[in-house]
Amino acid sequence: MSASAAQALRFGPQIMARADELAAITEEAPRLTRTYLTAQHRQAGERIAAWMREAGMSVHWDALGNVVGRYDGARPDAPVVMTGSHLDTVRDAGRYDGLFGILSPIACVADLHRRGIRLPHAIEVVAFGDEEGVRFGVTLIGSKAMAGVFDPAWLDRTDSQGISLRQALLDFGADPNGLAGVDRRGRGIAAFIESHIEQGPVLLQAGLALGVVTSIAGASRIRCTVTGLAGHAGTVPMNQRRDALAAAAEMVLAIEQHCQNHPGLVGTVGQLNVLPGAVNVIPQHAAFSIDIRSGVDATRLAGVEALRVQCEAIAAKRSVQLGFEPYFELTAAPCDERLQRQLADAISAQGLPVMHLPSGAGHDAMAFPAVCPMAMLFVRCGNGGISHHPDEILSVEDADQATAALLCLLETLALTD
Amino acid sequence: MSASAAQALRFGPQIMARADELAAITEEAPRLTRTYLTAQHRQAGERIAAWMREAGMSVHWDALGNVVGRYDGARPDAPVVMTGSHLDTVRDAGRYDGLFGILSPIACVADLHRRGIRLPHAIEVVAFGDEEGVRFGVTLIGSKAMAGVFDPAWLDRTDSQGISLRQALLDFGADPNGLAGVDRRGRGIAAFIESHIEQGPVLLQAGLALGVVTSIAGASRIRCTVTGLAGHAGTVPMNQRRDALAAAAEMVLAIEQHCQNHPGLVGTVGQLNVLPGAVNVIPQHAAFSIDIRSGVDATRLAGVEALRVQCEAIAAKRSVQLGFEPYFELTAAPCDERLQRQLADAISAQGLPVMHLPSGAGHDAMAFPAVCPMAMLFVRCGNGGISHHPDEILSVEDADQATAALLCLLETLALTD
Repeated sequence: MSASAAQALRFGPQIMARADELAAITEEAPRLTRTYLTAQHRQAGERIAAWMREAGMSVHWDALGNVVGRYDGARPDAPVVMTGSHLDTVRDAGRYDGLFGILSPIACVADLHRRGIRLPHAIEVVAFGDEEGVRFGVTLIGSKAMAGVFDPAWLDRTDSQGISLRQALLDFGADPNGLAGVDRRGRGIAAFIESHIEQGPVLLQAGLALGVVTSIAGASRIRCTVTGLAGHAGTVPMNQRRDALAAAAEMVLAIEQHCQNHPGLVGTVGQLNVLPGAVNVIPQHAAFSIDIRSGVDATRLAGVEALRVQCEAIAAKRSVQLGFEPYFELTAAPCDERLQRQLADAISAQGLPVMHLPSGAGHDAMAFPAVCPMAMLFVRCGNGGISHHPDEILSVEDADQATAALLCLLETLALTD
Repeated sequence: MSASAAQALRFGPQIMARADELAAITEEAPRLTRTYLTAQHRQAGERIAAWMREAGMSVHWDALGNVVGRYDGARPDAPVVMTGSHLDTVRDAGRYDGLFGILSPIACVADLHRRGIRLPHAIEVVAFGDEEGVRFGVTLIGSKAMAGVFDPAWLDRTDSQGISLRQALLDFGADPNGLAGVDRRGRGIAAFIESHIEQGPVLLQAGLALGVVTSIAGASRIRCTVTGLAGHAGTVPMNQRRDALAAAAEMVLAIEQHCQNHPGLVGTVGQLNVLPGAVNVIPQHAAFSIDIRSGVDATRLAGVEALRVQCEAIAAKRSVQLGFEPYFELTAAPCDERLQRQLADAISAQGLPVMHLPSGAGHDAMAFPAVCPMAMLFVRCGNGGISHHPDEILSVEDADQATAALLCLLETLALTD
């Protein structure tokens, strides 16, 4: 890109600079780690609040530590279009995951404000305090509270230091008793739109900057345990072994193969442990995890059942015992079709081709179907699609185009037919 | 077995009772753990020495803490047939591994002594102080010293408490400067014969009490590392993954398959670790061990090379990087064919069928080819062939038959054609 082309970008350079500025607010420099209800959460939130005010918004911190900026509509009783994402990060994170979905709509509102434009709807930009769930082991705390599905029992969960969520909220100056005020169901929210870095390689491979998310995948997680028979690595003939690791290895490949053969499914074995774990002992136990996802719940549930059958067949063939225990399930969140169409139009209006793709990762938006229709705009993730890692990359041009498309959507949005 | 049949056993009941007695001499009751140069080594050795004397032997402790009992031959200058095994154990051991090979020949000598028989050769029964290598990380210390391959550098190795082997020998009342006196090369040892529990299921599966060992397997150990690309379990499509664990799983199965297809090879992956090891992250790294053994060195070395080629092909196909680093090699020790034939005859003389089988595990006997021809008698391991475990089982009948066969061999042994 030439220098003159860079100068022609309306939004990208400022967004990139702000992302860099926020990346410096970390609990463990030089790594970027910013978790819920910490001093860094406060510091990043204040910086965001300042940018919101500068963009013409009124700002408040809600009872759960979310930062909410509001840009009023043309009429006081206008419906609200909410947009935003999270300001917390995983440990040793990239700098765009979450943050881009806050900085991009702030840039949109700043542009409207500069042009003196009020829309038929108010815009609220939210910086959610917790999406990643690093500190208390519950994800999407901010957006779940807005969707009225915050479980008060979570207030008793503790972090690694033994501090409860309740205490952390109090220490932060937030309000563990203020949940009802955060719940936005039935309070005039007409749509939720989240822009987010893809966190995968699909747009990159397709050579496209932007994509319309069709659905946020549901997920099942399964604990598998294989019990064979330990034995001396030198004395037990190959045909008399009941090797727990060899059985688990066959299952790992069956899982991979099944998901390769079933479009719309992804399956991952991310953990595998072997006991006794000695170089000269045939493994007695192997334990592994399965994470399986699909944008379509029926596809995912059929996948879980198929994997169970295949793992059981492998266990039976090898005379090992299998434990197959699903322990976590998250329902898919389909994006609103009407909003998807309008988002596609906004992308087309930038002169860009439109690609639809599912989101394999969870996002704040997935809490919103209980509140209002929702949609998601994906922006291309560079560097092979790496995310949750300092090597996560977003180009200034893509940031610019995504913001232009989001602004176009906000300006053209028809909330009713 | 009826009570009268039990009473007819000449050797078994006493051997079983003595094995029980020795099993009570442990560093961590109720688990049986007895390591080199400990008070328990001393205590077990003294008990064994007493039984040796009772059987008509003269006894001494050598400079490395081996207990050596001698039953003179018919002539003072008779050649020596040495037999024995180790009195140390692994942690939480079975009670027959090693010990049977001490108790069985003591019973043989006691029988000769009772009958007033002197043979054309002297018999030396050795209780080696260290075979398992638990305390100092060097295996076969006792037998290697007799074979003149004790490396003096080992004297500086330390145990988990920081005590050197040299200091431990001094504390034990042994002599780190006495290695030359222990070396038995060229000192009239005509044969070494070890009896040992099989530590595997081959005889058990064949329904046979005794077997003639053909060779003690050599072993290679290899560290494999697979480096792929981490990624989000939800966002990276199946066909764009470079999953280190899936690649390792395919290698684990290739290793198993190759060894199944090549008789005389056994291969084991006993360790496998995955990084980052999170349920929702595609594995970036997988590291695993390979232990591969054969009674024939050429078979083993060809196996290592074949596994390298197969693992490299899998890595190339999956676009992951492979590290394949052999780090340990032990040459096979073939048993002497002449001694094998005489051992087979001694088994036949008991009215038993003869089976030949390799030893996948290492034994004291494997140090002896540098000293003299060697042979090994295997006795059936019960309970599925479990060893190095408290569930290791030897039946009193098998102990009896093995001892009768060993006695027959000692009485009939022709040391020259």
